[in-house]
Amino acid sequence: MSEVRTLKVALLGCGNVGAQVARILLDDADALAARTGARLQLSGIAVRNLDSERDVELPRELFTTDADTLVKDADLVIELMGGIEPARSLILTAMQNGACVVTGNKALLAQDGPTLYEEADKAGVQLSYEAAVAGAIPILRPIRDSLSGDRITRVLGIVNGTTNFILDQMDSTGAQFADALAEAQRLGYAEADPTADVEGHDAAAKAAILASLSFHTRFALEDVYCEGITKVSAADIAAAKDAGFVIKLLAIAEKITNANGDGGISVRVHPTLLPREHPLAAVRGAFNAVFIEAENAGELMFYGQGAGGTPTASAVLGDLVSAARRVVLGGPGRTETTTGYVPALSIDASTTSYYIGLDVADQAGVLARITHIFAEHGVSIEIMRQTIHRDAASKVESAELKIVTHRASEAALAATVEAVKGLDVINSVTSVLRVEGV
Amino acid sequence: MSEVRTLKVALLGCGNVGAQVARILLDDADALAARTGARLQLSGIAVRNLDSERDVELPRELFTTDADTLVKDADLVIELMGGIEPARSLILTAMQNGACVVTGNKALLAQDGPTLYEEADKAGVQLSYEAAVAGAIPILRPIRDSLSGDRITRVLGIVNGTTNFILDQMDSTGAQFADALAEAQRLGYAEADPTADVEGHDAAAKAAILASLSFHTRFALEDVYCEGITKVSAADIAAAKDAGFVIKLLAIAEKITNANGDGGISVRVHPTLLPREHPLAAVRGAFNAVFIEAENAGELMFYGQGAGGTPTASAVLGDLVSAARRVVLGGPGRTETTTGYVPALSIDASTTSYYIGLDVADQAGVLARITHIFAEHGVSIEIMRQTIHRDAASKVESAELKIVTHRASEAALAATVEAVKGLDVINSVTSVLRVEGV
Repeated sequence: MSEVRTLKVALLGCGNVGAQVARILLDDADALAARTGARLQLSGIAVRNLDSERDVELPRELFTTDADTLVKDADLVIELMGGIEPARSLILTAMQNGACVVTGNKALLAQDGPTLYEEADKAGVQLSYEAAVAGAIPILRPIRDSLSGDRITRVLGIVNGTTNFILDQMDSTGAQFADALAEAQRLGYAEADPTADVEGHDAAAKAAILASLSFHTRFALEDVYCEGITKVSAADIAAAKDAGFVIKLLAIAEKITNANGDGGISVRVHPTLLPREHPLAAVRGAFNAVFIEAENAGELMFYGQGAGGTPTASAVLGDLVSAARRVVLGGPGRTETTTGYVPALSIDASTTSYYIGLDVADQAGVLARITHIFAEHGVSIEIMRQTIHRDAASKVESAELKIVTHRASEAALAATVEAVKGLDVINSVTSVLRVEGV
Repeated sequence: MSEVRTLKVALLGCGNVGAQVARILLDDADALAARTGARLQLSGIAVRNLDSERDVELPRELFTTDADTLVKDADLVIELMGGIEPARSLILTAMQNGACVVTGNKALLAQDGPTLYEEADKAGVQLSYEAAVAGAIPILRPIRDSLSGDRITRVLGIVNGTTNFILDQMDSTGAQFADALAEAQRLGYAEADPTADVEGHDAAAKAAILASLSFHTRFALEDVYCEGITKVSAADIAAAKDAGFVIKLLAIAEKITNANGDGGISVRVHPTLLPREHPLAAVRGAFNAVFIEAENAGELMFYGQGAGGTPTASAVLGDLVSAARRVVLGGPGRTETTTGYVPALSIDASTTSYYIGLDVADQAGVLARITHIFAEHGVSIEIMRQTIHRDAASKVESAELKIVTHRASEAALAATVEAVKGLDVINSVTSVLRVEGV
């Protein structure tokens, strides 16, 4: 390894993750050179404001506001600016100039991935983005490469640390959503404006990326049904706990085959009940995990830190070393395969099990009337449990009915719940939550 | 994708895994072609006996006993015969003829990996072996590629399903080792001769492979300290459980840095206590999992099925498609990086925490004498708990002392235990077990 070539690396953006990437490139230069077969020389860091505070002390002469010039002179470009423009244009320029690109920009990929993938194909360069989903966890490469000889049937991911932290807090302390969110903000797990996280938008972008790779089809953000966690109440969590479940915000992509043989892919994000013994149920705090079911491999799970500057930098560097190895060995980049044979399904066509909590009148015949409505709508009941609350004089105060259904379509479930609400023996529908992993 | 080239695939061996690989190659030919950019044509299956029973119905004309001719005419060779010869010679012939090789032969890799890796380098072909460690779980590719920009500091793996099943049975039912082994044999999780599994030899071969990739150094089987589970008793399991631990057979590879700054890699397999809340503690039955600690990525875990024909076939096919994509794109195979900067450490130089159970006399001064011996040997005590068992008349029947130490070297611990045994107040040393994850 005496004479190695040098590859110029341009870094766009120097936030939380970018600063750590720069630090590792400088500190670990020798080890990275040994593993790559080329020296990775950080040629510059493009930022908007030269005088901003950085997390890490970095040589001042590396900084520039002229991203365009930096990109045009680079062999490898790392884009960590976030947002759509100018990130999109800079990535396209880089690829047109023959540079491989590493990005963590999930919003851009979910919105305009196809344009970027096609440009990478055309230019014969590699576009990699392991950092865009589940931070430090190697998940995209295993899906793309290790499972390339298998058929993935379902992906369930805890891909947003903020919401997992909030739900975990609610589960372990009994807190309401607002209090758990405030705690997450205090500890730095949630931003001042938490919308993108708690409304599920961040998870939805990741769901689109996961679904695209898993099913060899390009899904965009608008293919993803998205429901956040703002309506999950302490009562929902308590009811779930009582029934042996935990509530997680899951990004789900699964193959649905109808009775007539056709079907498609349901891609969705929503609060979901999981049995407490499911491997994903043990994913606590701000950790992430992705659970995959494949025809041959069976069940797989990938677990680790989903965010944070240093962990995410690890994923960026992994992509960078892989891209650099390709450049050293010669040959074009490997591109995604998109045979594009499956449509995205609307949420109404998705099927899942449901947990339904009802506050009912304690009258003879109530159960029969409710079960009749379920049967009428083709929704089959798996578990039904009634709890009667009595006062000191043994007088019935209220009756609670908990129902877990077999898999049913969203449309059938919605119609069932509407019909049940119309019954005079129903005081209220206390919870309607989706269940996975049963 | 109208005109694609055809790549000839030779399969060596048609056991449990091989038969499933052949089935998938035939059944999923179109999907594999779409993902690869080339048709993967199964050109033949080399077996010892043409008339053996197979798990899967396969076209008779594919079978041959002439492995050598088959290999010389192949673009891609899958070796699933197991054992050292003729597997080794056939792999070398294949690579010398320019074919990429996929193998699941952990014994061969652990014994003679360096020869194979060097030959692959020289021939410019890819040698991949995801199936050799942890069956269906994509673990080698994430270590080699995704973590290539990070520094792995420790790997803890449950990499043998048979022993995990046995220990899990003992933990959940209180069974003795012999009974749990018999149950595993009855259910097909253990072979008639279980030596390779229960003595830890299978895990040791996998530990050598994991350590080599994780620390960019070539470790062989003789670098691995190996201790099986045959001496783990129901009493050990009960004592561990009582103290909040579970016993797992772990393959461990970790970087040890001495006070003077040098050090090396400790590679070892032994029964190990893990806190019940550790992610690996939840790995039940015959499942496998690998837990990785890296400087930047933090903690990662990979979980899935570690054995079985179909799951392992998934890993083989993933390697095959990746190798075929490389052939289609042109360019040489990517080889391992082995900067070879770290020595393997002997077990005496390894450090870990220990759990020690003692049956002691209930006399004044016992604790002082014991703690003095620990201090003398430089072994620091983290937790000590004494339980006094009394009979109905409140007379002391026995006293039990449980000690968990801070990290100490094997040598210091062994000397401590020897010295403690010599005390007249010690009736017996009931357990000495290593602890990780605290």
